[in-house]
Amino acid sequence: MSAVLRVGVAGLGTVGGGVLQVLARHAALISHRCGRDIKVTAVSARDKGRDRGIALDGIAWHDDALALAADPNVDVVVELIGGADGVAAALVEAALGNGKSVATGNKALIAKHGPRLAALAEKKGVALRFEAAVAGGIPVIKALSEGLAGNSLSRVYGILNGTCNYILTEMEDTGRAFEDVLAEAQQLGYAEADPSFDVDGIDTAHKLSILSAVAFGTPLDFESIFVEGIRQITPLDIEFAAELGYRIKLIGIATHGEAGLLQRVHPCLVAADKAIASVNGVFNAVVAEGDFVGQTVYQGRGAGAGPTASAVVADLIDIAQGHVHAVLSPPVKGAAVKALSMDGHIGRYYVRLSVADQPGVVAEIAAALRDESVSMEELLQRPNGSGQPVSFVMTTHEVAEAKMMRALDRIAALPFIAEKPDVIRIETF
Amino acid sequence: MSAVLRVGVAGLGTVGGGVLQVLARHAALISHRCGRDIKVTAVSARDKGRDRGIALDGIAWHDDALALAADPNVDVVVELIGGADGVAAALVEAALGNGKSVATGNKALIAKHGPRLAALAEKKGVALRFEAAVAGGIPVIKALSEGLAGNSLSRVYGILNGTCNYILTEMEDTGRAFEDVLAEAQQLGYAEADPSFDVDGIDTAHKLSILSAVAFGTPLDFESIFVEGIRQITPLDIEFAAELGYRIKLIGIATHGEAGLLQRVHPCLVAADKAIASVNGVFNAVVAEGDFVGQTVYQGRGAGAGPTASAVVADLIDIAQGHVHAVLSPPVKGAAVKALSMDGHIGRYYVRLSVADQPGVVAEIAAALRDESVSMEELLQRPNGSGQPVSFVMTTHEVAEAKMMRALDRIAALPFIAEKPDVIRIETF
Repeated sequence: MSAVLRVGVAGLGTVGGGVLQVLARHAALISHRCGRDIKVTAVSARDKGRDRGIALDGIAWHDDALALAADPNVDVVVELIGGADGVAAALVEAALGNGKSVATGNKALIAKHGPRLAALAEKKGVALRFEAAVAGGIPVIKALSEGLAGNSLSRVYGILNGTCNYILTEMEDTGRAFEDVLAEAQQLGYAEADPSFDVDGIDTAHKLSILSAVAFGTPLDFESIFVEGIRQITPLDIEFAAELGYRIKLIGIATHGEAGLLQRVHPCLVAADKAIASVNGVFNAVVAEGDFVGQTVYQGRGAGAGPTASAVVADLIDIAQGHVHAVLSPPVKGAAVKALSMDGHIGRYYVRLSVADQPGVVAEIAAALRDESVSMEELLQRPNGSGQPVSFVMTTHEVAEAKMMRALDRIAALPFIAEKPDVIRIETF
Repeated sequence: MSAVLRVGVAGLGTVGGGVLQVLARHAALISHRCGRDIKVTAVSARDKGRDRGIALDGIAWHDDALALAADPNVDVVVELIGGADGVAAALVEAALGNGKSVATGNKALIAKHGPRLAALAEKKGVALRFEAAVAGGIPVIKALSEGLAGNSLSRVYGILNGTCNYILTEMEDTGRAFEDVLAEAQQLGYAEADPSFDVDGIDTAHKLSILSAVAFGTPLDFESIFVEGIRQITPLDIEFAAELGYRIKLIGIATHGEAGLLQRVHPCLVAADKAIASVNGVFNAVVAEGDFVGQTVYQGRGAGAGPTASAVVADLIDIAQGHVHAVLSPPVKGAAVKALSMDGHIGRYYVRLSVADQPGVVAEIAAALRDESVSMEELLQRPNGSGQPVSFVMTTHEVAEAKMMRALDRIAALPFIAEKPDVIRIETF
């Protein structure tokens, strides 16, 4: 094991460049830590001519990323191309098939093809690692799969998307609307030109599917996740939530028990004094709960060249030391795990209605709630100027999602309701 | 590697019992995760007759813990006896010498003998693991040594002693005095009959010495740590700190840079809105800062049977998978690291004086500060009833510790000073 570990890097964007930088700056440190050198021997990217500010002397260049999988001077492929299919998937599959270990930061790929690729890696006796795919620089895949390996975990949840967290934090700090803050985030490079992966919760769901498979040892199941994004959150919601003692965060939550597995991604009202409520801006946080360890919390930067490269290099150091055990193992219980639907979820709700200012309104709303056994906890009503609809805000006690949604459907159909009711789940954690 | 990993456990207190419980309850899960069974084949404890509520059928009993090191049916020794020397040290040394890996929760042992034992383990090609020695169930040794292995770390700090954190939290919540809360903590089993290891900061210093050696790759150096405990903290300090926007926490802080290594343990005023200020009761938190990853935070229970056993079992699972790389490696930079003294520390200070209520007092205090270039930031003065000394509280701007201490010595000698000045460092993090 004293030979050099030879790395081929596919994708030389900010993260790929970061990986080369970490390996160059800390070559001695890393060699000392893992007892052998780790060297980039080949790279592939779209434009060879582009100046990336990285020295590529002595490193083979492949125009075709797939060539890395066949390069005899590459032991490990780092895949940083992105996308669930296409070149990224082909490269990872070919590399594993050729007996090369892979480290990737590609959550979409792992969420879609992880189990198949993990089985291939296991068959070939090589490693498939993806620390960089979830929560940037926070070594949370390692914490779940190794640090807490003596536990049966019952719940894992977290703030997993820095773009959404940045937007919600900015909306809160400035009172500006979602579209405004999104546009600014796009200008600053915190949000993509097509932001839907982030703001519609899909990226969080990719990451949650990976976290829950690793945490529970259940089959990775992206398709069953209940997903709701943050587009509908208004400054009014943030203001009312604050008045009620809450902050609004987009959270991915997975719970596993005898009844099955419930995975959900949606905006949550969380009590302002909870640790997770204070995770702001581009930071991520993951909470994992085990039967022996109790609750553990992990926080750090969720993205960016440095943190993500740090995670990729940690995977490379593990691989250099021969740690090839399967992180995504076949499910421990063998049998299929029942995916629970959101209908059966029991929770508390925040509801904001915009209603005409006329007699009998509260009575009709209350009747709809009563008929579905929804019990109100707090109420706020605020006039919005003469002749304007009134904001009517309530929080509920615990109730099944299905009942709550039926009550809301009935309320939405009432003649004095000016806008579609706005509902956000309250999480007490 | 498919053979059973046979474990000998020395010490069957709450943590030892917890280890047996984890291995029994999660036998199938653990076997699945590491590809082989982990079984306790031998134990040793003081009183064979005591009912521990654990089934010991089929497990060899040794009255002498040292016999575990020689037992041919033991591959790995778990040391949970405690104490820096004596049986614990002899057992660990003998086990490593006989080519058996060791997992221990013994911070005093590692702080005192870690480097020597780690060198022995490396020589023998076996593992010396101590995840349970620092921050209970939080897998922070793994995070620092593996998860952040691609970084050069510049600072690591944390709340590392649950007893002190519980006492400070209780003092804050109830306004009671240190001695009162300590007595209660002793009754509840949160504090030892002889509490000095905890409340005088020694336990925190043991843990900090381990954290900084792992984080920085510097030689473990417990002796150079500046240590101050929490006995002198009064309800008045907590009250004034709150008034100024701070909470008081006992924190271990290590910083490493070109100038050298500064390790210090002392009560700190931390801004109430910082994450670490909200770590209450028996919880621990560790913050690690790296050049690529930025700041990462780890939180969880710092002690107790479940969390500590969870950490021991994580180490066993690593050992079962053949991960024997050195966690405490010889220093990466070869050369000795300069231990910096507290004198050169630059920081801010909270000072509480009890002064006679007479003219000229503030002038004399201010002169002493001015002569040492100490600049005051905030001032609070509060009468304590007619004829009683007055509480005079100040915070300072940044100043060198040596200057601050010289100014305080001069102030303490002033005739109108009724009590020894109380000084607590302010950390801005």
